[in-house]
Amino acid sequence: MADIAQRFSQNPILVPAQVGPSRPGSKIECLLNPGVFRWEGRTHLLVRVAERPEPQPGRVRVPIMEEGKLKILDWASDDPALNTSDPRGYDYKGEGYLSTLSHLRLFASDDGIAFSPAEQPPLCGEGILETFGIEDCRVTTFEDGRFFLTYTAVSSWGYGVGLRETSDWQTVTHHGLILPPSNKDAAIFERKIGGRYVCLHRPSGVIVGGHYIWMAFSNDLKHWGGHRPVARTRPGMWDGARIGAGAAPIYTERGWLEIYHGADQNSRYCLGALLLDLHEPWKVLARSAEPIMEPLAEYERKGFFGHVVFTNGHLVDGDEITLYYGASDSVICGAKLSLGKILESLG
Amino acid sequence: MADIAQRFSQNPILVPAQVGPSRPGSKIECLLNPGVFRWEGRTHLLVRVAERPEPQPGRVRVPIMEEGKLKILDWASDDPALNTSDPRGYDYKGEGYLSTLSHLRLFASDDGIAFSPAEQPPLCGEGILETFGIEDCRVTTFEDGRFFLTYTAVSSWGYGVGLRETSDWQTVTHHGLILPPSNKDAAIFERKIGGRYVCLHRPSGVIVGGHYIWMAFSNDLKHWGGHRPVARTRPGMWDGARIGAGAAPIYTERGWLEIYHGADQNSRYCLGALLLDLHEPWKVLARSAEPIMEPLAEYERKGFFGHVVFTNGHLVDGDEITLYYGASDSVICGAKLSLGKILESLG
Repeated sequence: MADIAQRFSQNPILVPAQVGPSRPGSKIECLLNPGVFRWEGRTHLLVRVAERPEPQPGRVRVPIMEEGKLKILDWASDDPALNTSDPRGYDYKGEGYLSTLSHLRLFASDDGIAFSPAEQPPLCGEGILETFGIEDCRVTTFEDGRFFLTYTAVSSWGYGVGLRETSDWQTVTHHGLILPPSNKDAAIFERKIGGRYVCLHRPSGVIVGGHYIWMAFSNDLKHWGGHRPVARTRPGMWDGARIGAGAAPIYTERGWLEIYHGADQNSRYCLGALLLDLHEPWKVLARSAEPIMEPLAEYERKGFFGHVVFTNGHLVDGDEITLYYGASDSVICGAKLSLGKILESLG
Repeated sequence: MADIAQRFSQNPILVPAQVGPSRPGSKIECLLNPGVFRWEGRTHLLVRVAERPEPQPGRVRVPIMEEGKLKILDWASDDPALNTSDPRGYDYKGEGYLSTLSHLRLFASDDGIAFSPAEQPPLCGEGILETFGIEDCRVTTFEDGRFFLTYTAVSSWGYGVGLRETSDWQTVTHHGLILPPSNKDAAIFERKIGGRYVCLHRPSGVIVGGHYIWMAFSNDLKHWGGHRPVARTRPGMWDGARIGAGAAPIYTERGWLEIYHGADQNSRYCLGALLLDLHEPWKVLARSAEPIMEPLAEYERKGFFGHVVFTNGHLVDGDEITLYYGASDSVICGAKLSLGKILESLG
């Protein structure tokens, strides 16, 4: 049994019914994939809230933002130009769309289990590169109190990595797109290495290449270069079809520990670990042969998109990792993992 | 008749038979897509030389570089796991490969028509990100005598944009991959705009997005950010399937003039023009409704990959643009175009 996660007995800890939609006529389809940070003594989740228009019989309705206003594309369900085989995204006449529109909302907790909405304003897509929403935000916490947010910015131009910065969660500075399409799953290390900022990211290959984990370097967090690969998919294994980084890696004496997601040919999403060299972090010292966490619980197997555990946020206290994750692309859950046991599993 | 190019009567000006392969057992399949610059009073072409192993009956043989050595992958032509429907790239068991391995060689000319091999060493793929070769180099000339080379670096990790720098074409500094997969067709402007370096590039969308022209910004040429879109494909038109920048844009009083390539659904490649705002160059002021150059001559219609005119290099002297281009992905040709006529065609 490879799964070493101790799931919260309270799971799921946040579900759509607990939260109101952002506007009348919208329905929250999923809460998922939170960024995680400690701030002012409390645990905070920056939750991806995926909304769609209220369903109408015989119609497929796709929400997009245009110049700050919600616009609904509306097609007949049986339109032959429409392909809805993947619940997450549709194809209409060769153009890709998302079935839901995501924004990010803050929740706070004293005990890390019972979360309630925070006072701070939500973060929404802004400008032409975020008209299909913003998703799966990693929150990197620097020692000086700055938070850097890397998230998937989606629009008809493709999906890339957006960067925002804040210190107080009221005023948020938008630094634009730091990685162009197709890219997602970017996480900035919380310390510089060799004087440079470092991030993991996940470009996608077309014709050659695949959905692999890469690394990039920066002097100012806004401009990135020196791109180099870190890890590729392993055909036939649990991470055979696509992989991507989770949150910022955890510093350990043995190396940077990165908890990443991998999907197989059936789009079953598990979590595993990469151990990266402390000084040359593009070098993989060890990698999980088996997942450290698999979609086993019912809420991880059934939902909007079943058989998924996906994380992009955790807190670390000594040996204890408190991991927050999206289950079945539907609800938010938590689990505890032992840092030592993960390292042990890597041999 | 939209085509306003005056082709050289000497076309093609460089063909594979004029050039020797880089090693015994290799065969030059194509000469194509040169970068162009003036240096020491002569016109120089940095030509993409695409080689393949000598053919063997009943076999498909793919060349790749591994640790500086040529390795040949060898499959039976009728292997059902092999797809060779596109002559440029093959698929074997779901992995992408290129049919040829490209490097870059310098040719020089006094008159811009008759070219002979230059003394300087060839540029070859280096490291794990260039094992499938380097292609389609744009040469950006700065006033201080530095040349910056942006090219497509291809490997099993995907294709991205590599950057090299030289002043003397003997010593060449490799700055690594500046844009991760999938990206190509990057051209750096020859002047800063608003204090920053600017480039055009061509990321590819997966699921959402497409093969569109984008722009990025840099303070040091090695790290890029602020990615924003410039132009997208126009369904049903000559540039309906994919577009990409050619060489660095030409400064004019009306705006930056960019000669770009567009392909339609039949992979017929033509050239057109974009006029970009001088100060906000991501703003398109005008765009060719019809191509300014089409594959019309026999050498542009028939070859390794027919119906292609593709440029990534030109020289400008007053109103006269001398454009060098790859025809049918097979041979190198030249043509003259009037800058004024292109601007006129844009209305």
